[in-house]
Amino acid sequence: MYNFRNDYSEGCHPEVLAALAGVNSESVIGYGADDYCKTCADLIKDLCKAPQASVEFMVGGTQTNFVAIASFLRPWESVICAHTGHVNGHEAGAVEATGHKLMQAQVAGDGKLTPAHILPLVEGGRDEHVTKPRLVYISNATETGAVYTKTELTALSKCCRDNGLLLFLDGARLGCAMASAVNDLTLADIAALTDAFYIGGTKNGAMMGEALVILDPALQGNFFRMKKQHGAVLAKGWLLGVQFQALLRDGLYFKIAGHAVEMAQYLQGGLKNLGVPMMVDSPTNQIFPIVPDKLLPQLSKLCSYEIWSKADEDHTIIRFVTSFATPKESVEGLLAELKKMG
Amino acid sequence: MYNFRNDYSEGCHPEVLAALAGVNSESVIGYGADDYCKTCADLIKDLCKAPQASVEFMVGGTQTNFVAIASFLRPWESVICAHTGHVNGHEAGAVEATGHKLMQAQVAGDGKLTPAHILPLVEGGRDEHVTKPRLVYISNATETGAVYTKTELTALSKCCRDNGLLLFLDGARLGCAMASAVNDLTLADIAALTDAFYIGGTKNGAMMGEALVILDPALQGNFFRMKKQHGAVLAKGWLLGVQFQALLRDGLYFKIAGHAVEMAQYLQGGLKNLGVPMMVDSPTNQIFPIVPDKLLPQLSKLCSYEIWSKADEDHTIIRFVTSFATPKESVEGLLAELKKMG
Amino acid sequence: MYNFRNDYSEGCHPEVLAALAGVNSESVIGYGADDYCKTCADLIKDLCKAPQASVEFMVGGTQTNFVAIASFLRPWESVICAHTGHVNGHEAGAVEATGHKLMQAQVAGDGKLTPAHILPLVEGGRDEHVTKPRLVYISNATETGAVYTKTELTALSKCCRDNGLLLFLDGARLGCAMASAVNDLTLADIAALTDAFYIGGTKNGAMMGEALVILDPALQGNFFRMKKQHGAVLAKGWLLGVQFQALLRDGLYFKIAGHAVEMAQYLQGGLKNLGVPMMVDSPTNQIFPIVPDKLLPQLSKLCSYEIWSKADEDHTIIRFVTSFATPKESVEGLLAELKKMG
Amino acid sequence: MYNFRNDYSEGCHPEVLAALAGVNSESVIGYGADDYCKTCADLIKDLCKAPQASVEFMVGGTQTNFVAIASFLRPWESVICAHTGHVNGHEAGAVEATGHKLMQAQVAGDGKLTPAHILPLVEGGRDEHVTKPRLVYISNATETGAVYTKTELTALSKCCRDNGLLLFLDGARLGCAMASAVNDLTLADIAALTDAFYIGGTKNGAMMGEALVILDPALQGNFFRMKKQHGAVLAKGWLLGVQFQALLRDGLYFKIAGHAVEMAQYLQGGLKNLGVPMMVDSPTNQIFPIVPDKLLPQLSKLCSYEIWSKADEDHTIIRFVTSFATPKESVEGLLAELKKMG
Repeated sequence: MYNFRNDYSEGCHPEVLAALAGVNSESVIGYGADDYCKTCADLIKDLCKAPQASVEFMVGGTQTNFVAIASFLRPWESVICAHTGHVNGHEAGAVEATGHKLMQAQVAGDGKLTPAHILPLVEGGRDEHVTKPRLVYISNATETGAVYTKTELTALSKCCRDNGLLLFLDGARLGCAMASAVNDLTLADIAALTDAFYIGGTKNGAMMGEALVILDPALQGNFFRMKKQHGAVLAKGWLLGVQFQALLRDGLYFKIAGHAVEMAQYLQGGLKNLGVPMMVDSPTNQIFPIVPDKLLPQLSKLCSYEIWSKADEDHTIIRFVTSFATPKESVEGLLAELKKMG
Repeated sequence: MYNFRNDYSEGCHPEVLAALAGVNSESVIGYGADDYCKTCADLIKDLCKAPQASVEFMVGGTQTNFVAIASFLRPWESVICAHTGHVNGHEAGAVEATGHKLMQAQVAGDGKLTPAHILPLVEGGRDEHVTKPRLVYISNATETGAVYTKTELTALSKCCRDNGLLLFLDGARLGCAMASAVNDLTLADIAALTDAFYIGGTKNGAMMGEALVILDPALQGNFFRMKKQHGAVLAKGWLLGVQFQALLRDGLYFKIAGHAVEMAQYLQGGLKNLGVPMMVDSPTNQIFPIVPDKLLPQLSKLCSYEIWSKADEDHTIIRFVTSFATPKESVEGLLAELKKMG
Repeated sequence: MYNFRNDYSEGCHPEVLAALAGVNSESVIGYGADDYCKTCADLIKDLCKAPQASVEFMVGGTQTNFVAIASFLRPWESVICAHTGHVNGHEAGAVEATGHKLMQAQVAGDGKLTPAHILPLVEGGRDEHVTKPRLVYISNATETGAVYTKTELTALSKCCRDNGLLLFLDGARLGCAMASAVNDLTLADIAALTDAFYIGGTKNGAMMGEALVILDPALQGNFFRMKKQHGAVLAKGWLLGVQFQALLRDGLYFKIAGHAVEMAQYLQGGLKNLGVPMMVDSPTNQIFPIVPDKLLPQLSKLCSYEIWSKADEDHTIIRFVTSFATPKESVEGLLAELKKMG
Repeated sequence: MYNFRNDYSEGCHPEVLAALAGVNSESVIGYGADDYCKTCADLIKDLCKAPQASVEFMVGGTQTNFVAIASFLRPWESVICAHTGHVNGHEAGAVEATGHKLMQAQVAGDGKLTPAHILPLVEGGRDEHVTKPRLVYISNATETGAVYTKTELTALSKCCRDNGLLLFLDGARLGCAMASAVNDLTLADIAALTDAFYIGGTKNGAMMGEALVILDPALQGNFFRMKKQHGAVLAKGWLLGVQFQALLRDGLYFKIAGHAVEMAQYLQGGLKNLGVPMMVDSPTNQIFPIVPDKLLPQLSKLCSYEIWSKADEDHTIIRFVTSFATPKESVEGLLAELKKMG
């Protein structure tokens, strides 16, 4: 069966595994105070052209989101996000569990937030009987595979700075966003335009791990205690530094994201040729075909995927995801089978 | 330099690494819904003779402690623990961050809690102007290396059940506790006497991971949501199931804990022969020599260790820890050097 | 200047003040353990025909909402409410500050929630990566002055019970709801159809105070500790019991609510006669005229009111509120002045 | 029966009641935005010689403590307090419910905290695996009736400022502290030496209410939102301003505290003359006689009091409290009866 279920369905890239195996018997100091993490943090700061940044390695995306957000905010402050944002819909109330409200903007199918979404919430937040909006959460790529352009991110950044808002970018799928044909952002651009963002490892070649980059020095203090308090300090912290070194030192991270995007685009193109409509035209590694409900049983025997939502009475939007580990043969095999099905 | 700093200073046991490498290229369903986790949970339930239990894999000890405790308690309920308990002194207020008070009992140097510590706190808790004590937290081995006997754990369990208290056992170092010469508890005993406990992987051969066993079915509901809310669901959850299978299927877990204990006892015996006094006579893999302050600079060149506390004006209690990875040569080497130093 | 700003702009009804003065020099036991509270709780249980209920007096509405909700829920559970609900828009994130997510349904202008709003959120909540909806919050009267009928509340109640949801009714303006011409609910009906609700005192004749009625015995335990933990136990608790006795013993509560409603309806009718359109046709003590922006400066000299929202480019929706203390002369005076203004 | 149970067993001082009655029928703007609160805040700032201060009125002591503390701290920061501190022992975990740990110092019978208690906790807090101590909580008078001298408070203040700690003074019984013979502090002294403190109304003549004075402007921002979020904004906020004006405008507050202290000292002196030993020699309105257990049943018929703790096998420490409302006849009556009892 072909696997298009997710981009975290395999272990890690072989080079990452080799790196982990290579240090397995060394004695290393714990809790991320080791030289692997330090060297890797320096590498990331170089890539971001942000010597003032701090880099914090954590295990997963939900953890990174809520630990960072709760660390940055005061109790009466809240988060502005798209109603489709991962923090709102897929993290079991993690941000609220730290005491902070999410103020949701209804966004279009691409899942992107714009200044037009933000400004009315800022206006409403002047009333002292409500929480004060203080941080804008965006995902790049978004939950429906879209990618922010430099123009768009610059506008968001300006809007945030003009209104006393922090801009936080969830980069769980940053690799595929940056490997997509429509991307025109560099890590240095993102570092210059946001207050914090992370480079996702779990969904692009690591066993686990996200590298949070905190750009504003005022937000960096006591972050270790904050992580510790929320179970976000890995005892064998060097395991994260070692993985991100393997991914980032020689560009492996972007190379394998490029493969994932290429596979998804190949599949999307093939499906379109077969006349399958798409919910959105995604430039990244998640695509959203609309299929007749009656075909779903057959499809489920061919490959794994996720149900996204109903399209209409007789059609369902599904999600196919590719990864560093998706063989070209899977895409070709699936397309061939679908062609046979007609 | 000899490493006696901690039991999480190396990667994982080679057999665990081999198991991870063996499944690295498989496509597996995420979030712990896979067969590796399921099979491993069944194995643990068998070892515990507790078919009604649920097994929840998490990444680290602090995370396991606070997610479990916060899941079991209502907002007005609190935790009874030793003042030396890990939740009180080394987890950056993780339990309080979920809203729950710790009621500390002043315990002896062995770090053990007894019914005599618990009963006055239960009595005080009848006043409705204070939180209601609802859960007793103990560690086995304790933070100073002591081990609960079956008689002691039975007395605690009875005291808890008589007073409407849950008994939770932090098993971050359960392997070494059970491998020690003074242990007379089986996993099935622990499962019968507690309401929840965990089998620590991080400190005994795993890259990371703790296996929480929830014995009382009334405490099991919606635990996945609780984990998700606190960033405690590993995306590639099978990595934990695979590691615990490798550790528990054929007894590797207890075998390597036995090695760690043996090395610590060898070192403790050797130190005593050299006339070094101990803070406590530890039967496990953590030992606490009392050394003259003036020797510390030399010692720091020979080996890594942790400062525990001052013993008196001129002496310091230090902590040596051994692990599955401690070579016998390190112990012998250190003892030889110390002998030379006189 | 005529006051139509709010229904908490005056002290208390003279009979309430007399009752407070009458007990002022007595020595009474604190924290609500006194006989005034006990007798008043019994009276409320009688009025509700709910001998199993517990009655909890608190100081204000936001406090009552979040203390009750947080007491009833487990950490992974969330609240379903109208997007216009007071808990969502006017309480500065009080519910989220206790760790719970609000799941908002977009409702119509009357602010009423129906089973059709609830069911999709229940469906979405089956996914274990989101919070589990567990409590439905409604207000009666709603934030825009509407009143639930017995048919509507019965349908909501059935929907909740069928889906394992608690039904909580915010009764900050329950007096005016029940005094309105369209009401067909008794306190006993409300008690039979909800799991908890409160009788608002602050907005209907008391200095301060709300009487929470918890109907389900499973929700009643340890509520005193919960109140204490959130600063919701009034030291001189009898002050609340004394006030609610004065209000409820002989029907004063409903009599003065009737006056408030009558005044609002008189004003609404008069405004309509003058050709002023309304945002909604409110049957209670809050009305929502739509006025030309250019008239606002003059109006602000005549009377106090609140800006609700923009209606269109040139018009604004404002809110007039009446209370037990609104003199008929104010209504007549304002209408006369407006007639003069044309 | 003579009432010595507490200092919040009666309503309010007659002059306070008259003030409330005097404004009862006025229309006033809600939520504390009124002129009574503003004028009263100005009066308090004058008394404190602290023009930069902000004054926040809240309803009760527990509420004031936790709202202030949670507003001042970041998530990883904790509170240093005496083990006998009200926040630790009598507020049902209110501070922990906002996510913050209390670090308790074991203090002497007078309940006072000194730099010697604080410094080791600061030292321990340098470890990043624990919470960072950031605020020192003291009560004046303490929970056992003692009073800080200017020398003591100056030493505490210096210790806090040297170590980056905020000093917060719980003034629930500030009136009696300042009315005691041993007091040498003025409000201006307290304002100069602390970062925030409050003037307790509930226990000294008000129906309810505490006036929090926040001295450091950096701590003042968004406090209204913080109060609102925790249900600590009284809708009819002017009721608090009116009461504190009545108490503070002409010195009534200190006059009636003086009466309470005088009555307690009279009683303490009388008891000593009868040979009754005291747990501590209290200079304020709480006294702690040690009485034979066998006399308790008789005593309970004579007067109300609280059991404090066991003194030894046959003796119990009890607490007598006086207030503005304690008649001299009660003290004389009780002493006469006790003399008869022998």
